[in-house]
Order: sequence, then structure tokens, then C-alpha cells
Amino acid sequence: MIIRLATTADFDQIWPIFHSIAKAGETYAYERDISQPQAFQLWMVTPRQTYVCEENGQILGTYYLKTNHAGPGSHVCNCGYMVAEAARGRGIASDMCEHSQQVALELGYQAMQFNFVASSNEGAVRLWQKLGFAIVGRLPQAFHHPTMGYIDALVLYKWLKAG
Amino acid sequence: MIIRLATTADFDQIWPIFHSIAKAGETYAYERDISQPQAFQLWMVTPRQTYVCEENGQILGTYYLKTNHAGPGSHVCNCGYMVAEAARGRGIASDMCEHSQQVALELGYQAMQFNFVASSNEGAVRLWQKLGFAIVGRLPQAFHHPTMGYIDALVLYKWLKAG
Repeated sequence: MIIRLATTADFDQIWPIFHSIAKAGETYAYERDISQPQAFQLWMVTPRQTYVCEENGQILGTYYLKTNHAGPGSHVCNCGYMVAEAARGRGIASDMCEHSQQVALELGYQAMQFNFVASSNEGAVRLWQKLGFAIVGRLPQAFHHPTMGYIDALVLYKWLKAG
Repeated sequence: MIIRLATTADFDQIWPIFHSIAKAGETYAYERDISQPQAFQLWMVTPRQTYVCEENGQILGTYYLKTNHAGPGSHVCNCGYMVAEAARGRGIASDMCEHSQQVALELGYQAMQFNFVASSNEGAVRLWQKLGFAIVGRLPQAFHHPTMGYIDALVLYKWLKAG
């Protein structure tokens, strides 16, 4: 299993993962009926870098990294992670999050922020906390969940640089 | 004094306001050396709507309104307000914020969020709180202030709909 920069060709395998997660509407702030070209733009073009986690030519997961805010906020990056349903429970999100923190430091970022984590996504929240992220914000009823209705969204944050 | 939708021609008067605020680097997460075309894109094109506050043909302030997150977050909008230096202290930010809340409701939004308020911007924070916004997040050292160094940024939030 390796984590490497994504190529345009990888999107053929990324799209089914992305599509299924967006369509469910339970975790990511994307339109549930997002098109493949729109998803390509958001996942592969807008971010600063996009990575895939690959095993025997199969893409099991993917993440992007981008600058969260320009100017006075440009030392803080933002990442998003997706894991193929069949590959869950193998620690791939954790591996990608560790990898992204290393990449962030190499690119000169000092902190990482997740802007909009559905509070119902308890597994993810626990994982990010285990990896050193703190809940620094709670947005009341900011996430419209398809079955739970309006639920809180969380902001998570980690200062990456020691000292 | 009226608040009305901005036209492309208004940007001639908006740009000096925007430029001076961005250049100072004390409040907005824009590049301090942002160009006029980039600013036009960010303030006039990307947002859903942009307004100006005008008196006798003079633009005293401006604000944008946009959807903060797509899909499950699309019922929450985001706004940014700028007031010309010569027009400060006249309640124009307050008037624009009240106006934007009305517009937001008319457009079908249910809440408004400010994502990245420099904690040093105490006047603004007090004003938003007076207008019903709550501090729902604190991002440690997420704002790099030109003289104060790394300071916290705040997330403010208000549910607009009653009931």
C-alpha cells in the first residue's frame, strides 16, 4: 500500500468513491447530485495537491490538501479524505491523515483545519482527536443530514509545528 | 443613504476601499498585494450577491453574500463587509449587516456564518455580538497579524429563522 500524488488518470477510480460519498450526503458539503466534471474540479484542480492510497493498482482512498484562507490565514491548510467503502476499517484514513500532516509541514504550513465535520460522523471525529486534532468550534445545526435533519457541524484544528 | 445591489461600474469606487483593507492585512484573509482583477473576482463574481451602501453617488461601504458550504451546508450563508475609512463610526457596518440578514432570509438561507474574524478586531466582534451573532469557534493562532503576530481567529454564527 502506497500513498502517492494523484494523476488525472486516477480520477476514473476516484470518481466512484467520491460519487458514493457525495450522494449519501452524510459527511461532505458537496451537492448530492454533483457531476463528474464538477467533482474533478473540486477534488483534482482546486486543491494544491491531491493524493491517492493505492494497493495493486487499486485506489483505496484519496485526499486533497489546500490553503484554507489566503493572506493572514495562509499558514493553515485544509484537507479532505475519502476511503472506498470496501477498504474501510483498515486504518487508511488514519494513514492518509498522518501522511497529509507530513506533506503540510514540507509545504510550509503550520496548522491544519477541518472546517465542516458532521457531528454525526463520530468515527471520524474520534480518529481526528486521536491524531491530535481538537474540536475548536461547533456550528449549531449547520449540517443538514438526510435522515437526522439539522445537526451541528464541528471545526477541528491542529497546530503541526512543534514549539 | 441607500443600500443597493452593486454594478460592475461600482467597482471603481469599491476597489480603493478593498485595496486599503487588504493591504493593511489586519482583518481580511486576502493576499495583502492582491490585484484589482483578483479582487473583482473575489468580491463581485464569486459571491451570490454584492451590495453597496451609497450616499450622493459616493460608495461608503460594500458587502457580499454567498453560500458558505454546498449540499448539506447550503442553508448557511456567509457575508463580508467593508466600510470606507472616511465613513467609519456612522453605523454603516451595522446597517449593512442588518440588511444582509434580511436579504439572506429572502434568498432562503436559515443561518449566517463568519468564518474567520481576527480576534484583534474587537469592534467588529462586539458589533456582531450586539446583532445576535455568537462566537462558536476559536481557531488558535490561525490569523497572522502584521504587527501582533499569530493571533486567534473567531467563527461567528447566527440562526436567522425564528422557530
